[in-house]
Amino acid sequence: MWDEVRAAAHAAQSRRITDLFATDPDRAATFSVAADGMLLDCSKTTMTSADRDTLLGLIDAQGLAARRAAMFAGQPVNETEHRAVLHTALRDLTSEALTLAGTDILSDIRATRARMADFADQVRADGWRDVVNIGIGGSHLGPEMATRALSPYHDGPRCHFVSNVDGADIADTLHALDPARTLFIVASKTFTTVETMTNAATARDWLVSRGCDAGAQMAAVSSATDKTAKWGIDPARVFGFGDYVGGRYSVWGPVGLALMIAIGPHRFEEFLAGAAAMDAHFRTATPARNMPVMLALTGLWHHQGCGHATRAVLPYDQRLARLPAYLQQLEMESNGKGVTMSGAPPPAPTGPVVWGEPGTGGQHAFYQLIHQGTQVVPCEFMVAAEGHEPALAHHHRLLVANCLAQSEALMRGRSEAEAREMLRAAGLTGAELDRQAAHRAFPGNRPSTTLVYDRLTPHRLGQIIALYEHRVFVEGVALGINSFDQWGVELGKALATEMAPLIDGADASAKDGSTRALLAFLRANRR
Amino acid sequence: MWDEVRAAAHAAQSRRITDLFATDPDRAATFSVAADGMLLDCSKTTMTSADRDTLLGLIDAQGLAARRAAMFAGQPVNETEHRAVLHTALRDLTSEALTLAGTDILSDIRATRARMADFADQVRADGWRDVVNIGIGGSHLGPEMATRALSPYHDGPRCHFVSNVDGADIADTLHALDPARTLFIVASKTFTTVETMTNAATARDWLVSRGCDAGAQMAAVSSATDKTAKWGIDPARVFGFGDYVGGRYSVWGPVGLALMIAIGPHRFEEFLAGAAAMDAHFRTATPARNMPVMLALTGLWHHQGCGHATRAVLPYDQRLARLPAYLQQLEMESNGKGVTMSGAPPPAPTGPVVWGEPGTGGQHAFYQLIHQGTQVVPCEFMVAAEGHEPALAHHHRLLVANCLAQSEALMRGRSEAEAREMLRAAGLTGAELDRQAAHRAFPGNRPSTTLVYDRLTPHRLGQIIALYEHRVFVEGVALGINSFDQWGVELGKALATEMAPLIDGADASAKDGSTRALLAFLRANRR
Repeated sequence: MWDEVRAAAHAAQSRRITDLFATDPDRAATFSVAADGMLLDCSKTTMTSADRDTLLGLIDAQGLAARRAAMFAGQPVNETEHRAVLHTALRDLTSEALTLAGTDILSDIRATRARMADFADQVRADGWRDVVNIGIGGSHLGPEMATRALSPYHDGPRCHFVSNVDGADIADTLHALDPARTLFIVASKTFTTVETMTNAATARDWLVSRGCDAGAQMAAVSSATDKTAKWGIDPARVFGFGDYVGGRYSVWGPVGLALMIAIGPHRFEEFLAGAAAMDAHFRTATPARNMPVMLALTGLWHHQGCGHATRAVLPYDQRLARLPAYLQQLEMESNGKGVTMSGAPPPAPTGPVVWGEPGTGGQHAFYQLIHQGTQVVPCEFMVAAEGHEPALAHHHRLLVANCLAQSEALMRGRSEAEAREMLRAAGLTGAELDRQAAHRAFPGNRPSTTLVYDRLTPHRLGQIIALYEHRVFVEGVALGINSFDQWGVELGKALATEMAPLIDGADASAKDGSTRALLAFLRANRR
Repeated sequence: MWDEVRAAAHAAQSRRITDLFATDPDRAATFSVAADGMLLDCSKTTMTSADRDTLLGLIDAQGLAARRAAMFAGQPVNETEHRAVLHTALRDLTSEALTLAGTDILSDIRATRARMADFADQVRADGWRDVVNIGIGGSHLGPEMATRALSPYHDGPRCHFVSNVDGADIADTLHALDPARTLFIVASKTFTTVETMTNAATARDWLVSRGCDAGAQMAAVSSATDKTAKWGIDPARVFGFGDYVGGRYSVWGPVGLALMIAIGPHRFEEFLAGAAAMDAHFRTATPARNMPVMLALTGLWHHQGCGHATRAVLPYDQRLARLPAYLQQLEMESNGKGVTMSGAPPPAPTGPVVWGEPGTGGQHAFYQLIHQGTQVVPCEFMVAAEGHEPALAHHHRLLVANCLAQSEALMRGRSEAEAREMLRAAGLTGAELDRQAAHRAFPGNRPSTTLVYDRLTPHRLGQIIALYEHRVFVEGVALGINSFDQWGVELGKALATEMAPLIDGADASAKDGSTRALLAFLRANRR
């Protein structure tokens, strides 16, 4: 099947997207998908209906329907860790029960969410001015991204996020805060994550040294209740979750506590409902009308088929500034794998590099390469019909115009003949016209998708994140890999533990010459 | 010459970096470069001395020495725009004069810097609480990045940065500010940049509607004094610069005003002196001992030679969180080109995609792909020997340990035999051991560079940015492209102007089907 995909992509090399629109008036409708108030347009690509069907055949042969059903049913689809994958249960607001290993996990989840809501309401009522979430990776990127995304809905304390073990992170965050009015959430499932526990200890010292009762100013997101108890954190303020929720899929539960405090439990539930709506769509819509499936197919087409090494996520929304970083984890940690589930080499390259910045900022930075560079970067645009500031609707109009203009410019390009015509009209002639024309031409035919929606509400944000989660799942199924483990982070962790004493001066002679030279410099340059 | 580079890279495919260290005890010294208190280690790559010499031959044949001399002398090396490239003059604190078209630009630069310093001192003395810089691209990323990087040196008003035309950006920034104590800097060389002027108008409205004297609370970074005058901005508060400074190279002059206000004119001059030290090094050090040249060679080796599509910038410093975004502009706008200076196709792929996030955060996000994915991502690490928080030295020790451990892990990897041994020691046997082993192996042999320095002072930051500027220049010379224009941003701008009326309902029938469908959705979903 992969040979067919590669052959189809090879055949597409000489195809112009603009020709596909010229010959098929229905192309936009064929390659766009509507779901619950959002529209995903995948038509500005070189994919034909036949190519789509080839890819649909591939994911069908890979057993997408059965894998999807197994995931939602709680089968251990995370095979290397022998775990179910049920982050979807965290946002299931309608089912009565879901039994996993003899336990109804939905009743556990509901109970924890109710405790979170009580706690959040209390924090919001008690006049805390600042909340600092201490976590890293999956215990950081989700709440950080979502809290910023939903700033128009903030009516609780200000929320801050500390993740890096670099002391600069916590120092700069605490700098302007009042210890007496600051609450900390320490988010580490095992309560052993080095970065998080180092920062948590510094936070505790900060409170204690300023005469505060640290125990009364800390909550925990953790399943290690023995360790949180040793830390003196009241069990009533500890919120855990099951091993069927991976870190990068955990914003829907206790890891989202800071978000819940910022926007309130009711808005948080709207966020969950949006994700649940996408879950229902993903489970029921036919593949060619299924938004996560179609987003996955364009991903597979561009990376595994056409060989484009990266994809850019370009939200035209400043509040989604951290979405690219969030999706880097979601996509690259999930699908940046080197072996299939069975341990064999993958049938095609695995996950691409995902990167991006909000538009319009990016236009004045790296879009030069996207338009005229030699490397094709498939772009994933997204924009809302309107913003949250009615008085600034004229800003939003320009934002939308730029978003649509970029995808159009990437597709159309500008031929050298058109460039010459433009320069001639501007008064250039002769050698100067000849010299400039090639610099002013654009190859065009550069693919993109565009996701549009009404406004970035909590519901829409939930939908968008769940859309990407399921897209990652579909791509993982196509490749036959496990999208839910992350063994690739282990080696660096182990070597870091070995490395720390060498910085203090322990014998480094077993290390390579480069590491030894770096250690020598670093040791010599401390005061 | 490029054929030789490609042949050398092809021959390197079967080479292991660890073998190079095993057979050459001097490798670390041969492939590292010291300059003025910093050390750049390029030895964790597959490049041999012969490969390096091949690349040095290429840049020599491309006339690096003459191009460099021409740039520093003010020749119009930006040939498509007929401009000199003299951002280096902005930080030249020692030369007496530099004549360009009959004018001594150094005396102009000194006069403007003195006016900036007077203004900054006054702002710092007058009790302004907040300064908001409104600019985009080159008028935003530099001061934003550097101001955050140097937060330990802040002793002036708080600085904020608004760039996006999305109204969310300015709304969220002004939300918590006091109009009476907020000063705006409007940074747009032409004073016509749509995003910046839209935000500036909103800022003015915000001041006026709250009873403030907008004219007294705005300064401008612009060379269009007629337009700033129309805006009612006192000429004493307008700071311009010559057309020999491109936007992405402009942080050294008036565009750096917010930084100067944050850290003071004296620290700002240290920042300039750091860059000037790198300029002197770049002009005088022999190629194989020249830091920007060696960083450029590794870039050329990995992208144009080995075909790695991206490079990751991974600063182990939370305060450098915006360095990757800054370098995206610097590198991708400069070298993301499709033609050589003469208009011919380039001899090799041009600029790679540049992306990254600070460590250790990224380790818990996308490093999975870097370690075990099928795509090789050359990594550019950087870390200081010490931080700015003596009480948090134990944080910094872990930070450094992680940085060194990652480059070691990427290079060494873990064979499947080693993984089996590890799993056996952990008690696994039989089918489970067989199943897990492949998932726990790491290919290794993944290249990286590491830049180390004592502390991230203003001087060091200046050096680091100038290092990357000159690296981009050397790579551009190797490719024969113009690193100083950006024609690729023009088409999208032109189409955005056309697009705006269509959002309001003007006839869109001339557009492609995709754009028409998106417009229809966006129009229908506004209230």
